[in-house]
Amino acid sequence: MSLVEEAKKQAAYKAVDDNFPPHAKYVGIGSGSTVVYVAERIGQLKNKDSFICIPTGFQSKQLIIDNGLKLGTIEQFSDLDIAFDGADEVDPQLNLIKGGGACLFQEKLVAVSAKKFVVVADYRKKSDVLGKQWKQGIPIEIVPNSYVKITKDLKSLGAITVTLRQGGKAKAGPIITDNNNFLIDADFGEVKDPVSLHNKIKSLVGVVETGIFTNVASVSYFGEEDGKVSQWTV
Amino acid sequence: MSLVEEAKKQAAYKAVDDNFPPHAKYVGIGSGSTVVYVAERIGQLKNKDSFICIPTGFQSKQLIIDNGLKLGTIEQFSDLDIAFDGADEVDPQLNLIKGGGACLFQEKLVAVSAKKFVVVADYRKKSDVLGKQWKQGIPIEIVPNSYVKITKDLKSLGAITVTLRQGGKAKAGPIITDNNNFLIDADFGEVKDPVSLHNKIKSLVGVVETGIFTNVASVSYFGEEDGKVSQWTV
Repeated sequence: MSLVEEAKKQAAYKAVDDNFPPHAKYVGIGSGSTVVYVAERIGQLKNKDSFICIPTGFQSKQLIIDNGLKLGTIEQFSDLDIAFDGADEVDPQLNLIKGGGACLFQEKLVAVSAKKFVVVADYRKKSDVLGKQWKQGIPIEIVPNSYVKITKDLKSLGAITVTLRQGGKAKAGPIITDNNNFLIDADFGEVKDPVSLHNKIKSLVGVVETGIFTNVASVSYFGEEDGKVSQWTV
Repeated sequence: MSLVEEAKKQAAYKAVDDNFPPHAKYVGIGSGSTVVYVAERIGQLKNKDSFICIPTGFQSKQLIIDNGLKLGTIEQFSDLDIAFDGADEVDPQLNLIKGGGACLFQEKLVAVSAKKFVVVADYRKKSDVLGKQWKQGIPIEIVPNSYVKITKDLKSLGAITVTLRQGGKAKAGPIITDNNNFLIDADFGEVKDPVSLHNKIKSLVGVVETGIFTNVASVSYFGEEDGKVSQWTV
């Protein structure tokens, strides 16, 4: 195991050990290469039969099953004690960009449904300001037939490039999200005011949700290049 | 033809005659019992081959076809010269409630894409304040797996009742919108500040769009019970 991989594992284990509520009933579990170790650690808990895990998508459902954890849905259990997930970019105020994997909607639904939301990631996701590290643009889930209008709207809001995410070799034409929608990546450069930008984008007719997560994460653990674990809190 | 039916027809004809731009290229057409006469009147125009009509849903697509008009999509033509549609309730400021037919999303997309938006309806849709005539609640299109959370959120915002719209005899379980979503009817009583209520609801995680239309209609024509036509403008 490489130094950084070992650090990701340690960061994930520490995230669970520091935060997992002893009497948790409902636990949100996301996906990503660091969250794999979160699920592994939660799977080692002696009381693993006493709580139910709620996934953020297909990958995360598989993680829950593979680690012998109890699986539930967000429709059954809409008040979670805690949730763990990765991020594509994290700033020191714990504003996040998510949606690189096109699952941002259910990820946000789970995150905002949890009393505490804990981020785990590797050092490459740390950033002074959103948009500086994650160059692909802000992922935005939209109703398919609004993509022409929304492309114009996003440019009016200052987007430098607006791209309808394509399936590439995996699927001809645009990708379809788990909610049967399209996904746009909109590059706004460095995002100085993520709350304001999210609000402007979300208010557009056709926007289902944005990949800007603000005021939801309270702590983030990072695996560092040198094998150490670092931590940001707000 | 009853007095009120004749009045609806006259209201629709007047709406077209007063507002149809002579050199229109792209025209939005909605649905509803008064809009039937709008499509009929537009179908009588001599230059009907010189513009393209954009529907707000299946019913409205059929109206366009049945009246021998050219059909286009909002993805092809996202800047409309004018659009005509009905409403479930209209207040004197021309705030609207729409979505009784569960097509509110594309109806709003078409309305906000038009330079001018004209409402046609019968007198029963006139109201001092939204929520006074239309008692079924505000239609809200949502991502299906968020319905439990959104039900709670809407109650926190003051909704008296929140109902997941069911298919009844036509479909077991909830209706599915044209965008594969669910539809909630949320009764907020009389809505004193529709702009504020729309903004609060739309910002919720899981809400795709609300049936509150504000700052979009500029004139509304009504067929009255006594056979006359009335008109509200802002």
